Amino acid sequence: MDRAYTIGVDFGTSSVRAVVADCADGRIVGGRAADYPSGEQGILLDPRDPHLARQNPADYVEGLRAVVAGALDVAAGETGFSRARVIGIGVATTGSTPMPVNGRSQPLGLDPRWAGHLAAQAWLWKDHTAAAEAAAITAAAREHAPYLLAPVGGTYSSEWFWSKVWHCLRVAPEVFEAAESWVELADFVPALLAGVHEPRAILRCVCAAGHKALYSDAWGGLPPAGFLARLDPRLAALRSRLYERAYPADRPAGRLSPAWAAAFGLRAGLPIAMGGFDAHYGAVGAGVRSGTLVKIIGTSTCDCAVAPARERMPDVPGICGIVDGSIMPGHYGIEAGQSAVGDILKWWAEGVCEGGDALHAQLSAEAAQLRPGESGLLALDWNNGNRTILVDPRLTGLVVGQTLHTSRAEIYRALIEATAFGARAIVERLTEFGVPVERVVCCGGIAEKNPLFMQVYADVLGHPMLVAGSPQTPAIGAAVAAAVTAGAAAGGYDRFEEAQARMTSIKDTAFVPDPSARPVYDALYALYRELHDGFGGVPGARGEFGSLMKRLLAIRDSVVTGGAPERGQDAG
Amino acid sequence: MDRAYTIGVDFGTSSVRAVVADCADGRIVGGRAADYPSGEQGILLDPRDPHLARQNPADYVEGLRAVVAGALDVAAGETGFSRARVIGIGVATTGSTPMPVNGRSQPLGLDPRWAGHLAAQAWLWKDHTAAAEAAAITAAAREHAPYLLAPVGGTYSSEWFWSKVWHCLRVAPEVFEAAESWVELADFVPALLAGVHEPRAILRCVCAAGHKALYSDAWGGLPPAGFLARLDPRLAALRSRLYERAYPADRPAGRLSPAWAAAFGLRAGLPIAMGGFDAHYGAVGAGVRSGTLVKIIGTSTCDCAVAPARERMPDVPGICGIVDGSIMPGHYGIEAGQSAVGDILKWWAEGVCEGGDALHAQLSAEAAQLRPGESGLLALDWNNGNRTILVDPRLTGLVVGQTLHTSRAEIYRALIEATAFGARAIVERLTEFGVPVERVVCCGGIAEKNPLFMQVYADVLGHPMLVAGSPQTPAIGAAVAAAVTAGAAAGGYDRFEEAQARMTSIKDTAFVPDPSARPVYDALYALYRELHDGFGGVPGARGEFGSLMKRLLAIRDSVVTGGAPERGQDAG
Repeated sequence: MDRAYTIGVDFGTSSVRAVVADCADGRIVGGRAADYPSGEQGILLDPRDPHLARQNPADYVEGLRAVVAGALDVAAGETGFSRARVIGIGVATTGSTPMPVNGRSQPLGLDPRWAGHLAAQAWLWKDHTAAAEAAAITAAAREHAPYLLAPVGGTYSSEWFWSKVWHCLRVAPEVFEAAESWVELADFVPALLAGVHEPRAILRCVCAAGHKALYSDAWGGLPPAGFLARLDPRLAALRSRLYERAYPADRPAGRLSPAWAAAFGLRAGLPIAMGGFDAHYGAVGAGVRSGTLVKIIGTSTCDCAVAPARERMPDVPGICGIVDGSIMPGHYGIEAGQSAVGDILKWWAEGVCEGGDALHAQLSAEAAQLRPGESGLLALDWNNGNRTILVDPRLTGLVVGQTLHTSRAEIYRALIEATAFGARAIVERLTEFGVPVERVVCCGGIAEKNPLFMQVYADVLGHPMLVAGSPQTPAIGAAVAAAVTAGAAAGGYDRFEEAQARMTSIKDTAFVPDPSARPVYDALYALYRELHDGFGGVPGARGEFGSLMKRLLAIRDSVVTGGAPERGQDAG
Repeated sequence: MDRAYTIGVDFGTSSVRAVVADCADGRIVGGRAADYPSGEQGILLDPRDPHLARQNPADYVEGLRAVVAGALDVAAGETGFSRARVIGIGVATTGSTPMPVNGRSQPLGLDPRWAGHLAAQAWLWKDHTAAAEAAAITAAAREHAPYLLAPVGGTYSSEWFWSKVWHCLRVAPEVFEAAESWVELADFVPALLAGVHEPRAILRCVCAAGHKALYSDAWGGLPPAGFLARLDPRLAALRSRLYERAYPADRPAGRLSPAWAAAFGLRAGLPIAMGGFDAHYGAVGAGVRSGTLVKIIGTSTCDCAVAPARERMPDVPGICGIVDGSIMPGHYGIEAGQSAVGDILKWWAEGVCEGGDALHAQLSAEAAQLRPGESGLLALDWNNGNRTILVDPRLTGLVVGQTLHTSRAEIYRALIEATAFGARAIVERLTEFGVPVERVVCCGGIAEKNPLFMQVYADVLGHPMLVAGSPQTPAIGAAVAAAVTAGAAAGGYDRFEEAQARMTSIKDTAFVPDPSARPVYDALYALYRELHDGFGGVPGARGEFGSLMKRLLAIRDSVVTGGAPERGQDAG
């Protein structure tokens, strides 16, 4: 058969990129990225409210046009490639990133009349303005519809669809009223490419619906109108303008419209894969399968796992989402995550220490010289709240153990360790509820660039940290989905597993746990959990905070003098 | 009567200074300062142990020689001054700063054979190597001699005499064995000036003895030999080589020796005042009297108050020292303090942010733009342990409330506020036990230089912050003591109160509490006490840490939106 290629597009937090991948081996024959021009690093901010994070939909539309055309231009220089051999296109995006649209599926933010209005733009995943609404939804569901919360970990998040839409209704009712419907970015882009001009005609992916909008076939789709009416009757009215059903990536989201086909020099009618979250398609691109945890480590971290759909998954408290058909068709998709990981290191090195990339490198080098426990520091990784396992955006950072000699590099390492402890809390919660974690595959910027970070994670988690073969796993995963959507007959594949086996890979080098670090990190993790459960408000938590500083010092002293750490020792 | 002058010498943590003061009005007619040349900013450090802080006794001897001669040289240019009109000399020093001496009262550190040995040097007040010994002394006293601890707040400190001497015995027995006796710096300098060549002949001041060495006339002087033998028989044997009695500053410590008189061009036989701690003589120089709290704010803070000796003082838990005759003869001297204040700001601006004086100024300016509570941060001021009211050197720092937007200036302000909350805890403990605090007079470097700091203290304490008239209050206080020791007949005074009335002053400008800051700081102080008592191990402490971050956010939100803070509100 002739060579076949698919296009994967990945809409990230600050930029969008496209790749053209060879379906035979996943090799990228063309790629192009573009930063979003609006706001600060692509994000529209409000100086009066640090929780606000929006994006300009025009950045999506123009970015899509630029990066796909650019990637195809690069691929055109590759022997054997021709635009005629492109068999499909797939799209990964951030989420939950909903935006209000008008009756022609056009985002209000593209309308000049709404251009200056922050509520009319896309509500980026990390927008936390809707904390009060999230708490109210959680409270209402606990009282009246507890089944809604079981698959999302027991708590509804301020980062999710209904919190954001309701917050818009409350603070900007004129935007809410002007919106015919709301569409997730993951659903918007395929519909845009397919030329869908009516919101009800947009095929919605179960990734966004199930993980963020309380959708489940078990209760007939979105939450019942009666439940939404308890929040606000206008939300109940909106329900009928959204969608009845959401779908896994087992069918096309649509076919490439003549206009976009002409713009790219591609064939009109090419199949477009169902949109998916960057984390989910990133997991696909990293080779997710049962027993494999994929960690997408960047500004924040998304953890993804799958379990065969034939087994009934238990609900796992604090795990944000367990959704039938998300991530890969035929599986339960399981999603967890940490609200800030790279963002915390960036905050420290750039925000507080006021350095740039060179300072990151310097702090990493200095921190790598420290032994586990040597600094006497312990931190909580909650500068942007806690997504898993506490699901509470109104938590904040904490650092304890500072002396007059504590250095910026020691704090940098303590912050890395804090995120690693947060990662361990997630792994322990998953395994406790029967989701096996036998293999950890990492991808994302930090996995590529920060060996200290990866070694700390290996030591704290006690697992080798494998690294995905490509740095562009969401785009690769979208290309995989496109190849499956096109099907074997067209030069693609009929099943995700087949496509993954050919189109994804793991790097040869892995970060292997150092056995000597294990006892110290076990002891520090126990103290972390005291702080975590105590400050996180876990019912019945019993932190012995009166001795915590001394136990940290005892660990430090034991490391410095070379002895074994004694848990619970009070050296006072 | 002719003009009369006294010399006040102040041995600080990094430098020594001398002033020549006019007894009529306290005016300084000559001054000279010198940094200690040894170690890092005058302190000998051990890179393997951040708790170690020693000093080279040669720096004291050579510094004394240089600054007194230099101050007299400056004064010589003043109309009306002549060396013949100097009527006395007084000495203030850091403490507890004991050093081992040989049989001729010579510090071992001056002996070339011991020059490289850290244990043979002076053990600076802020040396915290003896935490284990302090805990063991506390435990032994609680079991066998609880009366010993009552006047020192119930807990013996690692900063104090017996902890340090015992630690030396344990880690450097060769130094302990080589020492005929141990002498506080405050007693050493007057004896050096007087040419006292036998340790038993040194007059010891009750300041050092009573506040640091468990001395009281109530139990016949130093702790009983039987008690010391429980710690180590060699400590009991040392007792007889120390001293039987200690004295208030109501008599001369000695008379200027011919050799030192010749060196300075002064009259041999001039009276030398009893040595005193810089904090105590600083309080004298700031005009301490009943109802006045003097805060000496520098790298650390010492709080001093006096109560008339005719009233029986109750013991105050956690207050380091209540000693009959210390600070001023005829009064109970009351001493409290914070282990690190300026040192914490220095750590942040210089150690972590790696700036210099300009950064301090910039951070202060930025922090001054913030409203109380606006940052959402709360900190504990324990980077160097807690001296009062927890008396626990093995406590460490803590900062909570960080977001991804938290700035270095916000943390700088939170650290200032943390030290102010620590200061408030001391004031509340004093007033709770009947020591009135009607007037707060500040002195020291920070009181002179940092208006933001002073305003935060005024707002947190709810008292105007007065500032002593001279920046050199310990030296002025030593000069006051010299004037009283010389007596009215010689051109000085017969009573401290008379000398203070003439020789000390208060600046016209004061920092006045802003009433609008009060409710926010009351709310933040309540949260501070939760952290303080919880992490400080106060028995029965019940911090609601599970809601603390949210209550901090509620305070922040109320400040940002202009409403009143609601204590205990959970905005989650």
